[in-house]
Amino acid sequence: MCYYIIIMVKKCRVRTISRKDCQDNINPYYIVGFFEGEGTFHIAFGRRKDLTQNWSIMPELHISQHKDCISILNSVKSYFGCGYIKENHPKSKHDQTNVYVVKNRKDLIEKIIPFFTKFQFLSEKKKDDFKKFSQVVMWLDQGIHFQPKGLRKIVDLAYSMNRSGKYRKLKKHQILSR
Amino acid sequence: MCYYIIIMVKKCRVRTISRKDCQDNINPYYIVGFFEGEGTFHIAFGRRKDLTQNWSIMPELHISQHKDCISILNSVKSYFGCGYIKENHPKSKHDQTNVYVVKNRKDLIEKIIPFFTKFQFLSEKKKDDFKKFSQVVMWLDQGIHFQPKGLRKIVDLAYSMNRSGKYRKLKKHQILSR
Repeated sequence: MCYYIIIMVKKCRVRTISRKDCQDNINPYYIVGFFEGEGTFHIAFGRRKDLTQNWSIMPELHISQHKDCISILNSVKSYFGCGYIKENHPKSKHDQTNVYVVKNRKDLIEKIIPFFTKFQFLSEKKKDDFKKFSQVVMWLDQGIHFQPKGLRKIVDLAYSMNRSGKYRKLKKHQILSR
Repeated sequence: MCYYIIIMVKKCRVRTISRKDCQDNINPYYIVGFFEGEGTFHIAFGRRKDLTQNWSIMPELHISQHKDCISILNSVKSYFGCGYIKENHPKSKHDQTNVYVVKNRKDLIEKIIPFFTKFQFLSEKKKDDFKKFSQVVMWLDQGIHFQPKGLRKIVDLAYSMNRSGKYRKLKKHQILSR
């Protein structure tokens, strides 16, 4: 089975690179370089008995930084004009990181996906994760997750991301068996 | 004592941003963004009984990536035209990272320092580490480390970098007591 069908991204405005961007503001290539190393495209699953397939599916972009570097997260948030910043683990004494999160689907489709389609990653790994992430977002937008077959396609693709889901707590069968 | 004297950087060629850089090759802002999250400016100390002050002082830039992402390190190395890439821990079964290293002082002075002076970091922490790193390189170029007072200045500044040297194995007094 081949997942690499062409991803249809809704046409929208992406900020172009002006001299001002390059000198005074955060530059889009800076953002790509920064996300190449530090950013994550993740598909979260949460049990929801009230939903048709018993699971909510939440694509999200996130990037964590030590609190000393919150200025970077603020600049990125300001550039995209969406998402929010929160403490990563507010109850932890050791974890002093903040995280920038975008999970609103409209923002992902209209801002995040067009941006990283235009300003591309360099590594095959990140390109691959981003393609899969975009595909899942589009599938959700088409509503394929309301059918068991669609849910399986999404779970399969999501679990092949981020080094084959090795850090996930839930196993695939736990989601697919409802 | 204030270390923030003006750093005199030798004038040299820094690649300018052309349309070609922005579209086909690695973009300098991508490099800055990538190093903001992943790169480290480090001052290493190695015991050398044959040297005047018994220690060699080795400033180095390094950046590690999983072997899946070696293409990024290759692109960065090619951009700077200096340094080398090696396995981080060749004997380890678990660590599958490679590291790009620049430690040649001429390359640091003529390529690395002018680059990050022109294309600046966003976070205060990284700006601070880079300023201190540049200062140590310039002090070494001036030869202040041949005197005990100079060695102390360098050790003090180096140990204030990278979260105040909390990951260092050697304590300051071990270097300063020779």
